[in-house]
Amino acid sequence: MGDSKAIQKHLELAGKIETGLKTDLTPDNLSLLYTPGVGEASTAIKNNPEIANKMTIKGNTVAVVSDGSAVLGLGNVGASAALPVMEGKAMLFKALADVNAFPLCLDTQDTEEIIKIVKAIAPNFAGINLEDISAPRCYEIEKRLQEELDIPVMHDDQHATAIIILAGLINANKVIGKDILKAKVVLAGAGPAGYATAKLLKDYGVSNVVVCDSKGVITSNRGNLDPHKQEISTDLYSSETSTLKACSEADAIIGLSRAGAITEDMVKSASNGVIIFALANPTPEIMPDIARNAGAKIVATGRNDFPNQLNNVLVFPGIFRGMIDSNIRSVTTEIKIKTAEAIASIVEDPTPENIIPSVFDPEVAKVVAHSLT
Amino acid sequence: MGDSKAIQKHLELAGKIETGLKTDLTPDNLSLLYTPGVGEASTAIKNNPEIANKMTIKGNTVAVVSDGSAVLGLGNVGASAALPVMEGKAMLFKALADVNAFPLCLDTQDTEEIIKIVKAIAPNFAGINLEDISAPRCYEIEKRLQEELDIPVMHDDQHATAIIILAGLINANKVIGKDILKAKVVLAGAGPAGYATAKLLKDYGVSNVVVCDSKGVITSNRGNLDPHKQEISTDLYSSETSTLKACSEADAIIGLSRAGAITEDMVKSASNGVIIFALANPTPEIMPDIARNAGAKIVATGRNDFPNQLNNVLVFPGIFRGMIDSNIRSVTTEIKIKTAEAIASIVEDPTPENIIPSVFDPEVAKVVAHSLT
Repeated sequence: MGDSKAIQKHLELAGKIETGLKTDLTPDNLSLLYTPGVGEASTAIKNNPEIANKMTIKGNTVAVVSDGSAVLGLGNVGASAALPVMEGKAMLFKALADVNAFPLCLDTQDTEEIIKIVKAIAPNFAGINLEDISAPRCYEIEKRLQEELDIPVMHDDQHATAIIILAGLINANKVIGKDILKAKVVLAGAGPAGYATAKLLKDYGVSNVVVCDSKGVITSNRGNLDPHKQEISTDLYSSETSTLKACSEADAIIGLSRAGAITEDMVKSASNGVIIFALANPTPEIMPDIARNAGAKIVATGRNDFPNQLNNVLVFPGIFRGMIDSNIRSVTTEIKIKTAEAIASIVEDPTPENIIPSVFDPEVAKVVAHSLT
Repeated sequence: MGDSKAIQKHLELAGKIETGLKTDLTPDNLSLLYTPGVGEASTAIKNNPEIANKMTIKGNTVAVVSDGSAVLGLGNVGASAALPVMEGKAMLFKALADVNAFPLCLDTQDTEEIIKIVKAIAPNFAGINLEDISAPRCYEIEKRLQEELDIPVMHDDQHATAIIILAGLINANKVIGKDILKAKVVLAGAGPAGYATAKLLKDYGVSNVVVCDSKGVITSNRGNLDPHKQEISTDLYSSETSTLKACSEADAIIGLSRAGAITEDMVKSASNGVIIFALANPTPEIMPDIARNAGAKIVATGRNDFPNQLNNVLVFPGIFRGMIDSNIRSVTTEIKIKTAEAIASIVEDPTPENIIPSVFDPEVAKVVAHSLT
């Protein structure tokens, strides 16, 4: 077989995670933890449901839920094919923040069914991490679950991305000595990640956030805007402004799109545009050396083979660790900002090639979790 | 606090199982198992869904699904309160057969919703172990899932109970030198366990199986029988025969009911009734010493503080281990009989106080699994 190293490794492991016992199966433990003792635990929870957090796996376990409709770089591959990705997330939750996580890829892409299913399984979990669900269903699913469940629900593709971008921008502006709140930030890409990033940057206080889609700048007076694009539209430009024009006035250009979406000309045109985050995976919107040659002073990507890896994995383990530890039931703007600031704070003295901690830094999840207490 | 030892142990552990990593989180592993390598695994599964069994947790993971509607000894306690029990099952799957198992207590008791949910989560699992779902919904849910999924689905309360009873009867009859196929077996209790046991004993070839409910013997000419009781009804008696009368002619009396359901008089009356399985938990239908004093030669219970513990835990880890290893997609009668015979075979020389292996015997799951190859 000509299997790649990645395929070989997947076949060798046959699963990235497994279940393990927290104690030995002795006769005493069987009596206490199974029959007959378990009846007392069940009765205690029936009388006081909150105590399930202290007596069961629910207290420290997150469900990684996807319908496989928007898997990074692959698109709508369905539940089975999404499983290796969700298992990878579960592995990272455990390795980086000691959160038990279990992948649940759902063999349905019906919004109402997904909502029903997640609500039905919620008693087993301390939080729900939604992954790789396509727009616009991801918005409705997250919103409804946040309203209807009393545990934190976070669509990772939106909010972990937004948080890591905010963390990166905080430190990048520190490096170049600018006030992030006065920066003009152009986002190339208006999918879930672009939407959530625009919202978070505005909530943080960034004055000028301009979001572009394939038609150019999303202005408030453009016709036929869906509600999410309307919400992140700008009054800075009239209709029919090109992305290139917006970039020419940008302090930071952030790609949440696809390879090629940020051109050399855009970077060159950007008289203030020294910060480039090209986050498409596996191929960035623009390659770092091209961006630097075109004038960018700080470049970040989602990849681990370039400096400044802005990756969700810096966010989701720690934020759930913190929300669980501090009994936080919803992912508010305040929580997101605290998380971004905590991640940024880990790099004590940021430089152009070091604005963000390593994804392997074991301190990240701890510092994030502590910031939420 | 005056917490019992069982409550204390549950609070101390805060979960009986956890997730664990199957390999370390190194930069190489992150590239192969997460971004970018994981995309190759996803693509391989999209092209050939069966390979998910070899590349993901699906290949060796069982869902322990309950709606908490019929939790042993407690009744309809709901999802949260059922969780300690399902976690206990998950712990036993791992400890006894190295099957990863994850508890999923569902916050719905609607038959169609449960079927939809289990179908939707099936891509993550090698098998579905249904637990503690009340009748008659348990029959419909199991039947539909067996028809509509291509992984084994087993309602443990029915079939693991039936299997362990058959295993016990094989060895008990060996001890007393009777032919099990010619025995008259009276089952006191016509719930899911009684139904499945009656069916399995008949399928095994036991000539006379008589099931009794609160009204006495379930005869085929009794009016208003539901389809399940109709299926296990007997022609040996006319209507309105008392359980006591049936017991007086029994070779074995099996309690699947509640404390007190087998009386001293029933055992005394049983001229052939030397085998008594009193399986109600935590209090048996009749206490072993009383049964023995009344004439029983072999007595078994579900408890670990008496000889002959007939407990489901001897069945479910090994049968799923075997079905997974041998790629068996449905729990047929043949599978159940092989499992019962394998469990019985482990006790080489059965005696009145030793008709069944210990629940801690690590050979049980191995022998069962091997018998299914």
